[in-house]
Amino acid sequence: MSITPTVKAILANYESDNPGVKTNLARILMQGRLGGTGKLIILPVDQGFEHGPARSFSVNPDAYDPHYHYQLAIDAGLSAYAAPLGPLEAGAATFAGQIPTILKVNSSNSWATSIDQAVTGTVDDALRLGCAAIGFTIYPGSDNIFEMMEEIREMSAEAKAVGIATVIWSYPRGGNLSKDGELALDVGAYAAHMATLLGAHIIKVKLPSANIEQKEAKAMYEGSDWSAQADRVRHVVQSCFAGRRIVVFSGGAAKGADAVYQDARDIRDGGGNGSIIGRNTFQRPRDEALAMLDKLVGIYKGED
Amino acid sequence: MSITPTVKAILANYESDNPGVKTNLARILMQGRLGGTGKLIILPVDQGFEHGPARSFSVNPDAYDPHYHYQLAIDAGLSAYAAPLGPLEAGAATFAGQIPTILKVNSSNSWATSIDQAVTGTVDDALRLGCAAIGFTIYPGSDNIFEMMEEIREMSAEAKAVGIATVIWSYPRGGNLSKDGELALDVGAYAAHMATLLGAHIIKVKLPSANIEQKEAKAMYEGSDWSAQADRVRHVVQSCFAGRRIVVFSGGAAKGADAVYQDARDIRDGGGNGSIIGRNTFQRPRDEALAMLDKLVGIYKGED
Amino acid sequence: MSITPTVKAILANYESDNPGVKTNLARILMQGRLGGTGKLIILPVDQGFEHGPARSFSVNPDAYDPHYHYQLAIDAGLSAYAAPLGPLEAGAATFAGQIPTILKVNSSNSWATSIDQAVTGTVDDALRLGCAAIGFTIYPGSDNIFEMMEEIREMSAEAKAVGIATVIWSYPRGGNLSKDGELALDVGAYAAHMATLLGAHIIKVKLPSANIEQKEAKAMYEGSDWSAQADRVRHVVQSCFAGRRIVVFSGGAAKGADAVYQDARDIRDGGGNGSIIGRNTFQRPRDEALAMLDKLVGIYKGED
Amino acid sequence: MSITPTVKAILANYESDNPGVKTNLARILMQGRLGGTGKLIILPVDQGFEHGPARSFSVNPDAYDPHYHYQLAIDAGLSAYAAPLGPLEAGAATFAGQIPTILKVNSSNSWATSIDQAVTGTVDDALRLGCAAIGFTIYPGSDNIFEMMEEIREMSAEAKAVGIATVIWSYPRGGNLSKDGELALDVGAYAAHMATLLGAHIIKVKLPSANIEQKEAKAMYEGSDWSAQADRVRHVVQSCFAGRRIVVFSGGAAKGADAVYQDARDIRDGGGNGSIIGRNTFQRPRDEALAMLDKLVGIYKGED
Amino acid sequence: MSITPTVKAILANYESDNPGVKTNLARILMQGRLGGTGKLIILPVDQGFEHGPARSFSVNPDAYDPHYHYQLAIDAGLSAYAAPLGPLEAGAATFAGQIPTILKVNSSNSWATSIDQAVTGTVDDALRLGCAAIGFTIYPGSDNIFEMMEEIREMSAEAKAVGIATVIWSYPRGGNLSKDGELALDVGAYAAHMATLLGAHIIKVKLPSANIEQKEAKAMYEGSDWSAQADRVRHVVQSCFAGRRIVVFSGGAAKGADAVYQDARDIRDGGGNGSIIGRNTFQRPRDEALAMLDKLVGIYKGED
Repeated sequence: MSITPTVKAILANYESDNPGVKTNLARILMQGRLGGTGKLIILPVDQGFEHGPARSFSVNPDAYDPHYHYQLAIDAGLSAYAAPLGPLEAGAATFAGQIPTILKVNSSNSWATSIDQAVTGTVDDALRLGCAAIGFTIYPGSDNIFEMMEEIREMSAEAKAVGIATVIWSYPRGGNLSKDGELALDVGAYAAHMATLLGAHIIKVKLPSANIEQKEAKAMYEGSDWSAQADRVRHVVQSCFAGRRIVVFSGGAAKGADAVYQDARDIRDGGGNGSIIGRNTFQRPRDEALAMLDKLVGIYKGED
Repeated sequence: MSITPTVKAILANYESDNPGVKTNLARILMQGRLGGTGKLIILPVDQGFEHGPARSFSVNPDAYDPHYHYQLAIDAGLSAYAAPLGPLEAGAATFAGQIPTILKVNSSNSWATSIDQAVTGTVDDALRLGCAAIGFTIYPGSDNIFEMMEEIREMSAEAKAVGIATVIWSYPRGGNLSKDGELALDVGAYAAHMATLLGAHIIKVKLPSANIEQKEAKAMYEGSDWSAQADRVRHVVQSCFAGRRIVVFSGGAAKGADAVYQDARDIRDGGGNGSIIGRNTFQRPRDEALAMLDKLVGIYKGED
Repeated sequence: MSITPTVKAILANYESDNPGVKTNLARILMQGRLGGTGKLIILPVDQGFEHGPARSFSVNPDAYDPHYHYQLAIDAGLSAYAAPLGPLEAGAATFAGQIPTILKVNSSNSWATSIDQAVTGTVDDALRLGCAAIGFTIYPGSDNIFEMMEEIREMSAEAKAVGIATVIWSYPRGGNLSKDGELALDVGAYAAHMATLLGAHIIKVKLPSANIEQKEAKAMYEGSDWSAQADRVRHVVQSCFAGRRIVVFSGGAAKGADAVYQDARDIRDGGGNGSIIGRNTFQRPRDEALAMLDKLVGIYKGED
Repeated sequence: MSITPTVKAILANYESDNPGVKTNLARILMQGRLGGTGKLIILPVDQGFEHGPARSFSVNPDAYDPHYHYQLAIDAGLSAYAAPLGPLEAGAATFAGQIPTILKVNSSNSWATSIDQAVTGTVDDALRLGCAAIGFTIYPGSDNIFEMMEEIREMSAEAKAVGIATVIWSYPRGGNLSKDGELALDVGAYAAHMATLLGAHIIKVKLPSANIEQKEAKAMYEGSDWSAQADRVRHVVQSCFAGRRIVVFSGGAAKGADAVYQDARDIRDGGGNGSIIGRNTFQRPRDEALAMLDKLVGIYKGED
Repeated sequence: MSITPTVKAILANYESDNPGVKTNLARILMQGRLGGTGKLIILPVDQGFEHGPARSFSVNPDAYDPHYHYQLAIDAGLSAYAAPLGPLEAGAATFAGQIPTILKVNSSNSWATSIDQAVTGTVDDALRLGCAAIGFTIYPGSDNIFEMMEEIREMSAEAKAVGIATVIWSYPRGGNLSKDGELALDVGAYAAHMATLLGAHIIKVKLPSANIEQKEAKAMYEGSDWSAQADRVRHVVQSCFAGRRIVVFSGGAAKGADAVYQDARDIRDGGGNGSIIGRNTFQRPRDEALAMLDKLVGIYKGED
């Protein structure tokens, strides 16, 4: 499988990385139906940690089985499958070599009493499970952000040395941020930028609203029209080294299919690299999920 | 890319290996034009170490450039490319993600005064260069065989822990073995068996002759007709845990194309998994080499 | 399954060992049809390393498959199965929990030019493969004996710390020992004693002849009648801390069934703990092998 | 490039440092248009971490790209470029060997709920990225100052052993310090002194006001006229081992060009070694920034 | 100092190396009067080890002082200075930052009783002394070549991780090589190739004669005219990954100035990257040496 010029150009931006990391990034970028386009769709299934099994899977009970998600990601032609340690251990041998996996190495849960996550996986786990990348969540704004940053700094250095890529989920939360502010444009761009500064290869953030949260930042956003989501995406991508890093956006809570499609079009039109889409797929019946993912692939290919 | 039942069955034989190793074996087995068939062709380019650059490359000067071999292996749709440290360092970024690589971690040369090799690469090198496997030569029969076995035991254990597969080149040589004996059937089967006992995932041996070298073994081979090469291949495969391990055969010195094709047919008919074919390809002009490899792929696919 | 008083008494002799080692010794002693009797039969399959595959398996080709030996040992109700790394890797998952395994961690071969073995497995391998013990060969008398002793000292210490038992194969060979002397009574007793002194939990030696090899030892053996094999066994057992250590005897090359049975009766009557019996079983057709092992079990149970 | 006597004299003050550290200090002091003068201008771009991307770069959108800053520093003939991990990873290969870099190894952000920073880079990162120095911020006065000091003590020791220089940003903040007090002369001199005591090779502080914050220190400053900024600079330099350490001053928030020039003249006249100037350059259009830096170089050369 | 396109193109060939290594290679390639041309002249002073002080320095007693050589290399505008541990320790602080240094980490001497070298420096030494590279000699052909290769494999891996480049001196010697054969074209090309395969960044060999030493290689060289030294250089460069690696040639024993100049022209015309020239300079009076080096610089610049 020859790398496309588009993917070659993306890989060239990771100029300090060893060929091992580039190989794993290439595996993700050349995988599935979007392989070679520079776009990607990742299936993340860590909602069991975040919200518990019933809230995550009872609407589609097949999804209690980790194999279900592997198979869904493969059958839909997605780029990668991301999950915590347990689910990858439960399927990594069966699906070895079929889809790149991302080991989510920290996790929170609904009952957490601090805005933080536990480190629940390691780079050694990623190696023995054949993963292409580790995934790590930071909560900029929280009281624990410095510690979280130090955790990923250490894990990411270890991962880079052994050829494993790093994906950072950057979710502003806690501290003085308002609830609305977590999704504000300035906040989202800043959160994405911090992940980039920390050395992430792939940055994962939420689609931002048109709100501006920070008083000191209002001036910089005034005078521009931020009502179009594609423009907001473009600003986030710009905030990730002017497009030198891969940026993917999460779909958030399950919602109507049309909204999901419009999000993807906006990500595409704003220059984002793709979607991390979990609940909106595995909480639908498999046929519907496959149809939705098929349509999303089409959108990222520019066919829709 | 879904694993085929054939490849799934092969992977199932590696029942003690972690998913990382299985993932890398799957990458090799699903790569290129033979992907999914359970057959494989590997391009090895360590002849520069063994015989020097002029004897290896002067007949086809483009082959002095390590990129040439990467591109040849990719364009021919091969399963993997094997080389020492230097050539992989010289191309691993350019060709990241395009073909699985095998880091040859020990090497000899024409001027060696002992039957041994130097360890010239490490598992860490394999990780940073994004390799799927390490390759190691043992010389059963030589005075240094115990030390060589201990070297690969250590490196292989390290590799298995981090999801890197192990290929052992098993070449009888030295000690009390006669020159003819190095290629004898009983010797080749024994050498292959030793590599298997050492825990190799892929065993690489030479195609054996019909000679029987060991006095004590003659009785076991008498009464059978070993004149057909396919039968000899079958015996070597049997000696590798009755087919539970992947066995590939080397073509030896450059020779006529028809002989190369017949070798491949015999390997295929005897149940071997494929060829490691170096000099017979890169010492031909690229067009001829591609034509030859195309024909070999066809043979392994059973079309010829 | 409750430990029998007989086994409890044996375990009590290992008074410095941690409960992990005792647990693994108990697993062997409580396994199979001899479970609880204090007697044991171990199936060792490392002849492929020692003599090559054809000399080992061609007489019974099913035996090329490592699974064959696992199944034979299980179906015959034996106490443990011993083999090098490769064969255990090839079956350890399939047969997990069905029979205790002993990882043979060093190995020689027919072409060796020194009286030595290569270390081909590790305690880490034993742990990841779920083995109950490691097995190690020493060649008292050889030029390499000190190095071999140091190797097992190191590995055994590591094994004991993690609850893995140690079996030492003690085979006098090389140096100034005559060929006949290798089997002499004084030599066999001395070799067994050295293994015991090295801290082996289980000592494995050959059945000794009535010869006395060492000039200096002749006086001590004169005046006694050593013509009965059971008496010679008793002397070897006595040399292993007066029965405080488990001693098993090998049957040597394949031979007539009656000779095998008589050996077992002598081992039993001389107070030996059992047999390690390889070629005499797997080189027979499976039915014959099972019948022979059934009879041996009966002998050790005192029924024959 | 021969070291000038001025630079030689500066290097001689670092009498306990190994030649590796001296080499890296020399690289900074011999670089660019001020090379050899003993003066230096460093471009620091960590404002993205501190204030977010929009507040840092939206006024000059080219500056979203990390390459922009490398190129600006090179084209302006500056002495070094300082940034966090991500931006250096994004440009270190492209600009290898063109300008000394300083890896900022800790970072805060606008949403921090404590006066502290996260350690976001390591000495190993500095080595693999070819950096001349690490940069570290301490907040004397904050509740976390002891921990911050211990972090830099550890990193600095590691850096010194491998020939990497240490730059400490010393910013009084938190605890009982008043907001005005953070810039007070006594406080700035004390903060600079603490960095010096911690073993920094280069000390970076803010230009102090004429305020005196500490009751206990007022007596020592009374009777002198501190209205001239150059005198205040001289006092800070004096506080850094009487000029035995390199001291550079930050320009603070973006402001009028004339103020920037006057600051530089005062730093020069007070015996300071130069400026760390970020926002005042990259937040201006590139042409204006180059013109400003050209003028600053002239000032430090005594031509203006 | 902006990298020239020529140097950028050379650096791009080191595609697996981290920016630290690239930075140090760039430092060498941008240093001195040949900076930016892709050509380089290195001053090596390890003859004291090889031949003793009197044979090395008595003809020009100033050269007993290590500072003499630093100053000579700087004043002549050379690219780098290479020496063992002691001389670099004696001058690294005085000349910090003035010229890239190469720590020769192994050394032989006139009284050696084996064809081998002692490892006399480490990567840690290179870091604390501010060196750009380590230098290591291998003796292909010698009985100790495998051990030497294993030494540099280990040191080079360590060096690459911390951004230090590797120079390999490859000198065929010992074993079955004839004395004339050491300089034979086929032997020199093979030796250079081995250094390249081992992962050297810079390969240093002797200028080869037109002899062909190896029987098996004669056919490959027949039919071409190897009488022109430039053609022989071209073949050696070709043997180093077709020009993807920097190759420099040593001048050998002190000889007439015209011969030295002609060598340089041939190196240049054959596509070599430059000279390592020791005895031919420091064994001449300083003025003569500077004049000679000036002329050599001119030759490499194509002016002569």
